[in-house]
Amino acid sequence: MKNKHVIDLEDISREELMEIIELANRIMASPEEYSEVCKGKILATLFYEPSTRTQMSFKTAMLRLGGNVIGFDNPQNSSVSKGESLKDTITVVGGYTDIIAIRHPSEGAAKAASMYSAAPVINAGDGGHLHPTQTLTDVVTLYNEKGTLDNMCIGLCGDLKNGRTVHSLIKTMSHFENNSFVLISTPELTVPQYIKDILNRSGCKYQEIPNLKDAMPLLDVLYMTRIQRERFASEEEYEKQKGIFVLDREKLTYAKSDLKILHPLPRVDEIEEDVDYDSRAKYFIQTVYGMYARMALIMTMLKDVDRTPMPRKFDTHNVRCKNPRCITQQEKYLPKRFHKAGGDMLLCRYCDDRTLI
Amino acid sequence: MKNKHVIDLEDISREELMEIIELANRIMASPEEYSEVCKGKILATLFYEPSTRTQMSFKTAMLRLGGNVIGFDNPQNSSVSKGESLKDTITVVGGYTDIIAIRHPSEGAAKAASMYSAAPVINAGDGGHLHPTQTLTDVVTLYNEKGTLDNMCIGLCGDLKNGRTVHSLIKTMSHFENNSFVLISTPELTVPQYIKDILNRSGCKYQEIPNLKDAMPLLDVLYMTRIQRERFASEEEYEKQKGIFVLDREKLTYAKSDLKILHPLPRVDEIEEDVDYDSRAKYFIQTVYGMYARMALIMTMLKDVDRTPMPRKFDTHNVRCKNPRCITQQEKYLPKRFHKAGGDMLLCRYCDDRTLI
Amino acid sequence: MKNKHVIDLEDISREELMEIIELANRIMASPEEYSEVCKGKILATLFYEPSTRTQMSFKTAMLRLGGNVIGFDNPQNSSVSKGESLKDTITVVGGYTDIIAIRHPSEGAAKAASMYSAAPVINAGDGGHLHPTQTLTDVVTLYNEKGTLDNMCIGLCGDLKNGRTVHSLIKTMSHFENNSFVLISTPELTVPQYIKDILNRSGCKYQEIPNLKDAMPLLDVLYMTRIQRERFASEEEYEKQKGIFVLDREKLTYAKSDLKILHPLPRVDEIEEDVDYDSRAKYFIQTVYGMYARMALIMTMLKDVDRTPMPRKFDTHNVRCKNPRCITQQEKYLPKRFHKAGGDMLLCRYCDDRTLI
Repeated sequence: MKNKHVIDLEDISREELMEIIELANRIMASPEEYSEVCKGKILATLFYEPSTRTQMSFKTAMLRLGGNVIGFDNPQNSSVSKGESLKDTITVVGGYTDIIAIRHPSEGAAKAASMYSAAPVINAGDGGHLHPTQTLTDVVTLYNEKGTLDNMCIGLCGDLKNGRTVHSLIKTMSHFENNSFVLISTPELTVPQYIKDILNRSGCKYQEIPNLKDAMPLLDVLYMTRIQRERFASEEEYEKQKGIFVLDREKLTYAKSDLKILHPLPRVDEIEEDVDYDSRAKYFIQTVYGMYARMALIMTMLKDVDRTPMPRKFDTHNVRCKNPRCITQQEKYLPKRFHKAGGDMLLCRYCDDRTLI
Repeated sequence: MKNKHVIDLEDISREELMEIIELANRIMASPEEYSEVCKGKILATLFYEPSTRTQMSFKTAMLRLGGNVIGFDNPQNSSVSKGESLKDTITVVGGYTDIIAIRHPSEGAAKAASMYSAAPVINAGDGGHLHPTQTLTDVVTLYNEKGTLDNMCIGLCGDLKNGRTVHSLIKTMSHFENNSFVLISTPELTVPQYIKDILNRSGCKYQEIPNLKDAMPLLDVLYMTRIQRERFASEEEYEKQKGIFVLDREKLTYAKSDLKILHPLPRVDEIEEDVDYDSRAKYFIQTVYGMYARMALIMTMLKDVDRTPMPRKFDTHNVRCKNPRCITQQEKYLPKRFHKAGGDMLLCRYCDDRTLI
Repeated sequence: MKNKHVIDLEDISREELMEIIELANRIMASPEEYSEVCKGKILATLFYEPSTRTQMSFKTAMLRLGGNVIGFDNPQNSSVSKGESLKDTITVVGGYTDIIAIRHPSEGAAKAASMYSAAPVINAGDGGHLHPTQTLTDVVTLYNEKGTLDNMCIGLCGDLKNGRTVHSLIKTMSHFENNSFVLISTPELTVPQYIKDILNRSGCKYQEIPNLKDAMPLLDVLYMTRIQRERFASEEEYEKQKGIFVLDREKLTYAKSDLKILHPLPRVDEIEEDVDYDSRAKYFIQTVYGMYARMALIMTMLKDVDRTPMPRKFDTHNVRCKNPRCITQQEKYLPKRFHKAGGDMLLCRYCDDRTLI
């Protein structure tokens, strides 16, 4: 692996990504051959906010590789939240275990953790920022269900403004050949400008369609997400619009026969329960692909890992990140680290937020 | 197994029950021979209400078979309770794991879960409804301590009206030869009529005795349970009556020398601590039998299991179950399923409650 | 082992302690040779108050020996706290598992647990009373970092009055040759008289120095602990004094070049983050030694263990322990057990508190 840690899916090169996908498929084909490859290894699942499904997926993945798991699922019940810095917790846990999956409500927390961990760190979600193993799951699902990652028309429906899994999937799929995108949402909840910039730079075609029904006939893949009620301009607006973005059997009659419907789950009411019985619904099998994807990722990251002695000291900037949800707002000892982003702009290395000098 | 899932102990045929009991005994005799039979298998313990003892018994059972365990112990700390349907959770977890033990405060929840699970489901308690592995524990204890399941006089003491383990034990033991029952409680807290109907149909003798002391000399087995203070008609009634149903060393002087005292635990004050040192007290060793009983059950259920692809669609009735504690009250998408119960009565397939058309 | 249970580090003889230290070193040198020595064994971690770090250390230790773990991390989420006695819980869990690590807020709780457990019990902290595996960790750290347990000048800084790890470390190190102690704290927070008695009896030299800077040049080892704000006489006193007991790079300039800095962790602000990058800082590697120390302890305790059938009855005194934090205050059924402590004094066998007859 070019990087020890996987904080962003971009930490994995395209070649590495294809190898992980292929490995996931080999594990799926003969799981018993991989049932002891992580024997004696321990995964820590450090969940600073509860996410039972993600945690169960990681645990199952490690157990099915013959490894073991420790961790916590809610710092409210743990002594970890009481006055101990993220750095100290990670330094200790990185000494106990072989690999760490961290979930945290603050943006950039996984990056911060990786700076102090002797063990490789996987970002299992840092606030609204990144969630690379969800995107890996989506990509493994597409590769298996479509047989390719090229030449697809991918619809994304729901809250495209705030959906981190949507942004990450678009970024990743734009690297493959000849994919196009249909963005299905209200004008207020469309993708941020930086995603459109990525699409434009990569030469991917895309169009925006404000309702799901009209988009249906175009799609090879439909990636559903939820629009939270509070995202709408008003309660009236919500009542008027909500049905437009709900997938039901009626809308499915306009879809291609080989459409694949994905959803990062949990679903609330944006897909009607009836749709589950349609063979195009892939959102449950998607979670099984996710387990194999995580198995392949853990295996790959544990190969020849360099457990550099910690702690290591980093340079610090004299400017502080302005993002109120950035991990540097709570963990004051963290060195202020930025990339230059052109002009007077700095890009926070933790949360990717832009700060003016 | 005639049934894939074990929701009620009635899901197990009498022959299967005897095989599970015999298997439990073989495991007890040489546990090392069984220490890897579930290697590579994963049990999910989905506890929608805390029950530390039951969960520890299931976990220990699976670990002692060489398998592994994931799960949660309190949905308040998990994201599972937040807006995700039981169906979706079970569909996903049934895809990750090989067998599921579910505990839930709503009656019929385990039945509902089993309808959507690719993995076999064990009911680890659904509200006040059923708790088949407790009864399996009781039966394995009796078989080992008595050498038979026939020809016993079984006393049941405490709250016989609301005690699900009492009802289930009576039903099960009434299938064996020549067992009789002594029901020891206040008149208000005696067994429901349907249990008396079962006793009458099976030809089992039974008598009701309103205090423990008078019953003692008759008993081969005493199954103690708790009467909760709030079950008595009044505080005065409680103060007057409570001692009558408490087992102490004095009452034990009236008992047979080979009496076996059982209790589903936790005990509060219905058995005095002094009784623990009497060799007739079997309620602690009963929990060890429970572990072996669960080992035998898990092993048996995992043999040749059919992992039917899910989800499957069920017919739905136009009548809704009236039981306010039924799982169908909360999980509205569940198909309304009933057995005909004679006349205008329907028997809810989830909670076994009777509903008038 | 001379004792089945390890409640106090004094339960381990000096010879046994040296064997455990040597075993920890052998495991550290070739962990793969020990990766299956506890295969098929189960550790229960019963944490009646959360202590994530200690629990993770025990779990990792058992998993790295090839064993498995069950338990709970917070009785608020468990049914254990609801009306079940410690005795009943331990009796049951001692029947399920092979070894128990218990953490409890009440003093003497681990001792009480050991009286009813068929499985050997490790005290993982009982209120402010004892925490033997922390001291074992400290001793393994010193032995590895210094190559000996003799001839050291050991500074102890912070709240020496209430710090159980401080008391236990002094007691243990006073048994070795030619160690001297520097006690660094405010006069109000110095060690209790009984610790000074131990030092005097063992012939160890010690001095009291009221600030860290003056003590620095003398020390081979510095054991840092926290002084809680509320321990100071007043807020003004706190503001005036706090810096005196904080370790920073400036104070380190007065230290020997081979000083070893230890801390039981979690650290709050008594060691500045900058000190982490000094090679004399050993408090993170100390947690890794702690994992190996617990591995060696578990291995040793599981060898030839006698699983005496429980429950067993103990004599009871007619006097009750006066310590409001003693486990006998809550668990009323516990027999009142004392050692004679000279004159009219009795020493509670649970919490070691002195009670006048």
